Amino acid sequence: MRDPEKTRAQILSAAFDTIYRNGFRASSVKEIVSKAGVTEGAFFHYFHTKDDLGYALADEVLKEMMLDRWTRPLAAYENPVQGMIVRFRKLMESTSDEDLSLGCPLNNLTQEMSPVDQAFRDKLREVLGLWVDETERYLKKAQARGYLKPGVNPRQVAEFAVMAEEGSAAMVKNLGDRRLYWSLYESFRAYMLSISSKPNLVH
Amino acid sequence: MRDPEKTRAQILSAAFDTIYRNGFRASSVKEIVSKAGVTEGAFFHYFHTKDDLGYALADEVLKEMMLDRWTRPLAAYENPVQGMIVRFRKLMESTSDEDLSLGCPLNNLTQEMSPVDQAFRDKLREVLGLWVDETERYLKKAQARGYLKPGVNPRQVAEFAVMAEEGSAAMVKNLGDRRLYWSLYESFRAYMLSISSKPNLVH
Repeated sequence: MRDPEKTRAQILSAAFDTIYRNGFRASSVKEIVSKAGVTEGAFFHYFHTKDDLGYALADEVLKEMMLDRWTRPLAAYENPVQGMIVRFRKLMESTSDEDLSLGCPLNNLTQEMSPVDQAFRDKLREVLGLWVDETERYLKKAQARGYLKPGVNPRQVAEFAVMAEEGSAAMVKNLGDRRLYWSLYESFRAYMLSISSKPNLVH
Repeated sequence: MRDPEKTRAQILSAAFDTIYRNGFRASSVKEIVSKAGVTEGAFFHYFHTKDDLGYALADEVLKEMMLDRWTRPLAAYENPVQGMIVRFRKLMESTSDEDLSLGCPLNNLTQEMSPVDQAFRDKLREVLGLWVDETERYLKKAQARGYLKPGVNPRQVAEFAVMAEEGSAAMVKNLGDRRLYWSLYESFRAYMLSISSKPNLVH
């Protein structure tokens, strides 16, 4: 017998790949079940409609992906400001050329579906809002530990940093130029150091 | 008799409005000619296909709009760094709530059409590239006039500034929160001042 949790995860993973490449509306349930190796019956057992699948993609897959890539790793740094600089660089280095040309999956789904569907809009906003909230939480820790200048507003920095993390992926995609990522990284780093109270301790 | 240049401009203006609201693929020639108050015959006299209209929209309307909004006004500033800060603020203040929720027309058309059409991709990249080039040109002037720190790379700053100008509009749209624009403006300003050699002369 199949493990129901595993089947559901297989469908979500196949849906992520298909939708990341072709967009939500251009991806069919047929394509997704064929990639997942399950029947349409199984698909509709887990997701009543294709929209429900899309909502689960936002709520679960994209949210977890954002947390794993951008904010959870910050827990490992005594200085979260340094963590943010290192993560920006590591994500840039580990992203394949294909993924760079496809851009950020959260941004793509937002751009496609938020203007036409309220439920997508709410769920995608929640993911982006959580990204800012979690970044702010680590910046507050950085400030409490003396790594962020006392006059700096952690919420304001979190909003600008998430804008730069998302905006950089979009610009690299739009100009089709991997080299640009290095330039944006250097500026992101310079900005973070300009608000840091111990810039000499950041590598 | 109609003025042919005026008719063509009317069609492009109606096309901009329609496509900005509904996207390129969801906008029909019928809708555009009805909004422009011209016949379909007139439309196809100026643009052989709907794609040709889209290319003219990128090449002419979006390019001119970008230059008018972001870079040409910098010529009026003795210190272009200050000009960039003031323009960011003025554009934020003058954008209606509706336009904020629709986002940047260049970014929207790029996101929709660049992945599916090479000619769109080339033309839209040209507009974004020109935005960076023109910004760099003014930053070089700023550096020559002693307003930008000597060690700062004007190309790198131009790339980061355009990313922030585009990225801020996208984030305000995605979170549906006008207040956020003020926060992003404050950080943009702080970043520009951090690379400025006469920050006390910037208001």
